[in-house]
Amino acid sequence: MSKKIYLAGPEVFLVNARDILDRKAALTRAAGFTPISPGDLDIPPTDTKKGFGLAISEIDEQMMLEADAIIANLTPFRGIAADTGTTFELGFMCGLGKPVLAYTNVAANHFARVLDYYQGAVVKGADGHKRGPDGLSVEDFEMIDNLMLHGGIERRGGAVVVGNADPAALYTDLAAFEACLAIAVEKLR
Amino acid sequence: MSKKIYLAGPEVFLVNARDILDRKAALTRAAGFTPISPGDLDIPPTDTKKGFGLAISEIDEQMMLEADAIIANLTPFRGIAADTGTTFELGFMCGLGKPVLAYTNVAANHFARVLDYYQGAVVKGADGHKRGPDGLSVEDFEMIDNLMLHGGIERRGGAVVVGNADPAALYTDLAAFEACLAIAVEKLR
Repeated sequence: MSKKIYLAGPEVFLVNARDILDRKAALTRAAGFTPISPGDLDIPPTDTKKGFGLAISEIDEQMMLEADAIIANLTPFRGIAADTGTTFELGFMCGLGKPVLAYTNVAANHFARVLDYYQGAVVKGADGHKRGPDGLSVEDFEMIDNLMLHGGIERRGGAVVVGNADPAALYTDLAAFEACLAIAVEKLR
Repeated sequence: MSKKIYLAGPEVFLVNARDILDRKAALTRAAGFTPISPGDLDIPPTDTKKGFGLAISEIDEQMMLEADAIIANLTPFRGIAADTGTTFELGFMCGLGKPVLAYTNVAANHFARVLDYYQGAVVKGADGHKRGPDGLSVEDFEMIDNLMLHGGIERRGGAVVVGNADPAALYTDLAAFEACLAIAVEKLR
């Protein structure tokens, strides 16, 4: 029985989500694992919008309970940080004590992206913290996103793969995902 | 022995982080709980930037393991979505099976914020999904953020409190936090 990997990421929001999820699933099978993806199951109709969201939440959590590991796509989504659904799922799997791997298709790290967000206006204050013009401190830990994400993965011996996709293929370039799978083969099989 | 509540949120990035964390801790004690906050413990010096981030990650996770519940501040941070560190922590506590509560200081829900992000250019496609001009589908589930967050909380019987703070007090207005604490008294004590 091959190990099940939950494939988390914002590609579920793409117009061609099913195609990308199918490609990721095929690569996962080729690496010797069983893929589980949000979107694999049909959601029964519900009476309300919120009811539908709750039903998806339940199914996705159930998939994670059945999974042996997660590969999370932490590519920035509608802004400078990872998709919050994906980061929730990464934390969920860490809480369950399961192996976690992640990748991003953006080479610029968290600090570089926040610096860009503030158009370079980040200065080190008297307290030693670098801060933007709004006073918010800027993490500079050579990590791809908030330290709880990157730190939670590295501290568990998981992998953080940094890709560098063409912006036009931000959520469809699977090179970093394939590199993650290769590491998963070493770590999980 | 009073129950311990982990206080998660982006206020750790404020210039006056210690002051706000102290105010939240005092309110938590007044409600009969023991507060645990990221930033409560001094982090030992490390050789590298990343080493420091990893040390904080370890301490914050340890705090969550010791906590009985979490109140997560999901107020949007540097964009239209919650702080990814906080969403990781919310997922972590859900994975641990502990009670979760959350609040936001922004009244506009996820759909309204994404609509604003796309300057209103969201249309319903032939597949039934509402999409922005970049093709990414827009969740419209009457939830405050991604369905995994809001759904994960509601499905566990946790509370999602929606505040409406003055933008100048986005991370310092504690009215919604206090409403969360009042619910925690009913649910946890």
